[in-house]
Amino acid sequence: MELTIEKRIGISSLLDKVTSAEKAASMIQDGNVVGMSGFTRAGDAKVVPLALAERAKNEKLKIDVYTGASLGPEVDQILAEAGGIRKRGPYQGDPALRNLINKGEVLYVDAHLSHNAELVRQGIIGPIDFAIIEATAITKDGLLVPTTSVGNSPIFATYAKNIIIELNLAHSETLIGVHDIYIPEKQGEREAIPLSKPTDRIGEIGIKIDPEKVKAIVISNEQDAPSLIVPPDEETQTMANHLLDFFRSEIKAGRLTNKLAPIQSGVGSVANAVLEGFKDSEFEDLIVFSEVLQDAVFNLIDAGKVSFASCTSITISEELQKKVYGNIENYADKIVIRPQEVSNHPEVIRRLGLIAINAALEVDIYGNVNSTHVSGTKMMNGIGGSGDFTRNSRTSIFVTKSYAKGGKLSSIVPMVAHHDHTEHDVQVIVTEQGVADLRGLAPKERVPLIIENCAHPDFKQQLWDYYNEAVALTGNAQTPHNLEKALSWHVQAAKTGSMKF
Amino acid sequence: MELTIEKRIGISSLLDKVTSAEKAASMIQDGNVVGMSGFTRAGDAKVVPLALAERAKNEKLKIDVYTGASLGPEVDQILAEAGGIRKRGPYQGDPALRNLINKGEVLYVDAHLSHNAELVRQGIIGPIDFAIIEATAITKDGLLVPTTSVGNSPIFATYAKNIIIELNLAHSETLIGVHDIYIPEKQGEREAIPLSKPTDRIGEIGIKIDPEKVKAIVISNEQDAPSLIVPPDEETQTMANHLLDFFRSEIKAGRLTNKLAPIQSGVGSVANAVLEGFKDSEFEDLIVFSEVLQDAVFNLIDAGKVSFASCTSITISEELQKKVYGNIENYADKIVIRPQEVSNHPEVIRRLGLIAINAALEVDIYGNVNSTHVSGTKMMNGIGGSGDFTRNSRTSIFVTKSYAKGGKLSSIVPMVAHHDHTEHDVQVIVTEQGVADLRGLAPKERVPLIIENCAHPDFKQQLWDYYNEAVALTGNAQTPHNLEKALSWHVQAAKTGSMKF
Repeated sequence: MELTIEKRIGISSLLDKVTSAEKAASMIQDGNVVGMSGFTRAGDAKVVPLALAERAKNEKLKIDVYTGASLGPEVDQILAEAGGIRKRGPYQGDPALRNLINKGEVLYVDAHLSHNAELVRQGIIGPIDFAIIEATAITKDGLLVPTTSVGNSPIFATYAKNIIIELNLAHSETLIGVHDIYIPEKQGEREAIPLSKPTDRIGEIGIKIDPEKVKAIVISNEQDAPSLIVPPDEETQTMANHLLDFFRSEIKAGRLTNKLAPIQSGVGSVANAVLEGFKDSEFEDLIVFSEVLQDAVFNLIDAGKVSFASCTSITISEELQKKVYGNIENYADKIVIRPQEVSNHPEVIRRLGLIAINAALEVDIYGNVNSTHVSGTKMMNGIGGSGDFTRNSRTSIFVTKSYAKGGKLSSIVPMVAHHDHTEHDVQVIVTEQGVADLRGLAPKERVPLIIENCAHPDFKQQLWDYYNEAVALTGNAQTPHNLEKALSWHVQAAKTGSMKF
Repeated sequence: MELTIEKRIGISSLLDKVTSAEKAASMIQDGNVVGMSGFTRAGDAKVVPLALAERAKNEKLKIDVYTGASLGPEVDQILAEAGGIRKRGPYQGDPALRNLINKGEVLYVDAHLSHNAELVRQGIIGPIDFAIIEATAITKDGLLVPTTSVGNSPIFATYAKNIIIELNLAHSETLIGVHDIYIPEKQGEREAIPLSKPTDRIGEIGIKIDPEKVKAIVISNEQDAPSLIVPPDEETQTMANHLLDFFRSEIKAGRLTNKLAPIQSGVGSVANAVLEGFKDSEFEDLIVFSEVLQDAVFNLIDAGKVSFASCTSITISEELQKKVYGNIENYADKIVIRPQEVSNHPEVIRRLGLIAINAALEVDIYGNVNSTHVSGTKMMNGIGGSGDFTRNSRTSIFVTKSYAKGGKLSSIVPMVAHHDHTEHDVQVIVTEQGVADLRGLAPKERVPLIIENCAHPDFKQQLWDYYNEAVALTGNAQTPHNLEKALSWHVQAAKTGSMKF
């Protein structure tokens, strides 16, 4: 192991920085702002946070934690439950942290994932006291090679006063070369991002760091917490079929070929299931340009359906971890892991003309989408990159089952109780009932498509009743609403558990 | 005049296309989709639409009208009132058209102004039967030189089956060279937009057209409908002062110098007044990179405060029209008029790091903004480019007076009744009461700043009462709301005219 570590730390002056997790964690002070690697449970620091959590149990230690996106249990469960987090951003997905957020015990800044790097540059987030970054290696040129995600690590490493590195020996050195690190200059001083094809490599294989800032290197040997997606069920399969049919109609309309366009797909079981739907389809030579590669993408690569995949994170099941990370050389020429500032950049997304597929919690009759807040008040996970992709994609698609809680709740409502994506941004809605193609339509033209094609039959009449009353009340205004009843479905659900009147 | 026309039509084969407005209008059929030049009352076709309106009075003639943004009275009042418009997008600002929209007589697609060109490329808007474009000249190389706006004219001219040109002799030929026409390729086939400084010229002086598509050239001689802004009052002056103080604090924080960053400012009296505030300030060598240049920008150029201004439209008062268009050569090296796809492009906005200043109708205690819908149902004007700029700017600022209707309505409400810009996008709010800097804050951290710094004193306690009740009700959740009362202020205002309880 000694030898391996020396091989992985290319700058010999850094060898004496190797220390224990406890020692590294002891450098962090109460009130510090800490930028951590990690994006949807991949590539996050795993041992220093546990040592921090131990401290937080025994002394006043509350830090602000900014990351790429959600982390595994070491931070978002264990450190959070130890009371070690004052503020968290820009995304999380852990039940324990969610609970603390919704009790007001942790402040949570839910933000577009492409925005964070700019806020760090401006010092709105920061000054960052420590960056804690999981790495595969440090090259002789002083490049810090990430592991299974890049996220915001480049910007944290660049702007942090101090850097703690977790060198994770669980990852093979063959991961070196898979990353493509490009960091834009400050706004107003930068040139265009020189990426015009998803396969383009525009940066370095690692993050250029100042060795002087490296205060500790901690050795770890842990796989990422595996993803928690559940297998496709009958309804997600039906949704996938609807989506494939939509793509077929786009081909007929001359807007796409059977190679489609680069695909972005949100995180979660529904999005994963929808992608799995491509496996037995006629579509081929597909390109993925997304935040997160889930199981489906690797299955599609293996099936010869996906020829290239760009991401900022690889978040896969335990079974697939063994297969992919044990044979990363088989995938190395087919994948690239980028900073989230590139994967999610409006400039890149609009230029490439992505097809964006994201999950909604609920959608209203005019096409507004709630992605984040249960009952408009309680945070679920966060907006993540869905806004970056939705606003700038070629085609912006939201998927959701038409109902929840065994049919008591409708995912199609008169007015969403929290707005993450407005009517101006949402183009296509897919439920297990069907597809509503809202592109180019005025609000009142959207209503029949959303109700008839997407709502569950149990709620259709109730939606029409709401709409017709609103039309009469407003004299058929641009966006008819009865504000006394617009949120009444949510109010009743809070009281009775059901949206049925 | 004969000679002037010949000088202005550089392709001699087009000379026999010169015809009357009536003849040109007669080519357009009921049900046609028409793309028109014009952006906030500037550079719009003025004589063919009047001939169309005459036809619409006497026969069934309803067309879909897409433009850059709002037009003068010929289309958005006279043609609309003649019943000649079935569908309108992506922006309007006319009381007559607004009335028809809110009676359900005209369909209105209120859209981000950077989105239209992509929708035309994809054929979601279209096929476009006719483009009607006001021009200064047609060059020998077949370039159509616009007048006082560019807007969506390049994309309409490129994709329309037929083109009708209104050659407006009211504009001096010295306007030739002021425009910079750059049209991106299709998504997935394009390179970066090669603009890295606001002063960069990246395209041609006119729109490349296929002469075969030109079916009529109609001569006109009319100035644009002048802008309708009202002069600054005491409260807009106070808001301007607050904004200048905010910029001073940004300089102190090391984020800006006294040259600031390129400024985008929305349309309307408040935005104009705020810009006028720079005149007697210490800020200098300012750059404007905006959609619309209003009076204030030219006054700032004259005062030596603004050194360069990029736009897609010049919309100024009658007095200023004489001064600017009579002496355009004095301004020609200080201004450039671009397609709205460039002025409003996320790629360009984020690269340049603009300061975006836009007007809100109302703001809620968590920072969501309603820009479009009075009472959440009736369209005012539209979202325009505010979303393009807000989402991608360096600093996103919204301005509004804290009250409306003589103090009966609060512009700060528990929940906005229509969401155009969400909490994820709104950074700074300015009213005549003060400034709320929301950057990097969680929802509950924003509440005291918005209420205490921005709300009118008459409504502060009522806002606190709402919030405190919501906190108790939700157990201090991420975004406390009492959904039974969230829209109750609007409900009561609809009944009694007042939001005071």
